[in-house]
Amino acid sequence: MSDRTDIDALIELMSRLPGLGPRSARRAVLHLIRKRARLLTPLADLMQRVAATARECLNCGNIGTSDICTICADEKRANGLLCVVEDVADLWAMERSGTFKGRYHVLGGTLSALDSVGPEELRIPRLISRVPAEEISEVILALNVTVDGQTTAHYIADQLEGRVMLSSLAQGVPIGGELDYLDDGTITAALNARKRME
Amino acid sequence: MSDRTDIDALIELMSRLPGLGPRSARRAVLHLIRKRARLLTPLADLMQRVAATARECLNCGNIGTSDICTICADEKRANGLLCVVEDVADLWAMERSGTFKGRYHVLGGTLSALDSVGPEELRIPRLISRVPAEEISEVILALNVTVDGQTTAHYIADQLEGRVMLSSLAQGVPIGGELDYLDDGTITAALNARKRME
Repeated sequence: MSDRTDIDALIELMSRLPGLGPRSARRAVLHLIRKRARLLTPLADLMQRVAATARECLNCGNIGTSDICTICADEKRANGLLCVVEDVADLWAMERSGTFKGRYHVLGGTLSALDSVGPEELRIPRLISRVPAEEISEVILALNVTVDGQTTAHYIADQLEGRVMLSSLAQGVPIGGELDYLDDGTITAALNARKRME
Repeated sequence: MSDRTDIDALIELMSRLPGLGPRSARRAVLHLIRKRARLLTPLADLMQRVAATARECLNCGNIGTSDICTICADEKRANGLLCVVEDVADLWAMERSGTFKGRYHVLGGTLSALDSVGPEELRIPRLISRVPAEEISEVILALNVTVDGQTTAHYIADQLEGRVMLSSLAQGVPIGGELDYLDDGTITAALNARKRME
């Protein structure tokens, strides 16, 4: 229908978002049109602002609205700890937990021979230069427990060996996890890393 | 983080879309920021255009960009058939099938005593006035096969009885459907409406 060109184009763009398919994009667009004043217009404005201002932190790769993100700019977070994550989403997840008070380094992916992703593509040289520059005492490798994530962690550990203390997140049973629903790998890891009760 | 205010606000608004929660909204926003030129900016522009132009057709309730939608404006579709649907999404689904060549009437919901939705809320008076005005010969009630949908169909049928031919969509086994996965109601309906093979 010719007068739906813009609406159809909007549905098509929305359906390219992760987690939305054609059907849910149609539902979302109808919802947006119905809530025009409270949702569609504010969303369009915010998207325009974010498109204009969002940028990657030149130091760590976090996404914010300045060249150096608030975490890297915050002197209180220069405590010698550097947490290496694959993706900005992982950084945000760490921040939500509120436990970590150091700084981050976002790799932007994992090494992958198949997709020909090498260290240069991954902000690894910058990580190595940050360690002496920011007087880092401990690098925490918080990479995903996947084959690619662990390969990348080993590569980084090799590069930084002897220059800084290295650690990785503990592996084991998640809080609230039920053994019956856990995969064998997690149970094996939790058993191997068992702790003596005091 | 203070410099993420706009990004956080965008995530919050995105998470209000049907089908997206906080986690998928975060993923979608990161995806949008990464594909700024190809996705975020065009999406913001389209949303602004749709917010400015989208409107309900004054005749049938379809959503388009003019006061009378292209279907209602198309004289070739004035073939005496009027298909009544609950929602614009249902109209779009019918159009995708490409079978129906008449016009539509979008009720905008179903009668519901619980939510105090009466005929006046549902564009039913307009439906009744359209039947003589557009010389409708058959009204096809394409309402969802739910309690509320069928209650609404019965109410409309009562109102239009004797003034026009009424029909409803056939009920039965969906194309590609496997009996083993169908609910009892569908199997019963398909059995009761069985057809003699020629």
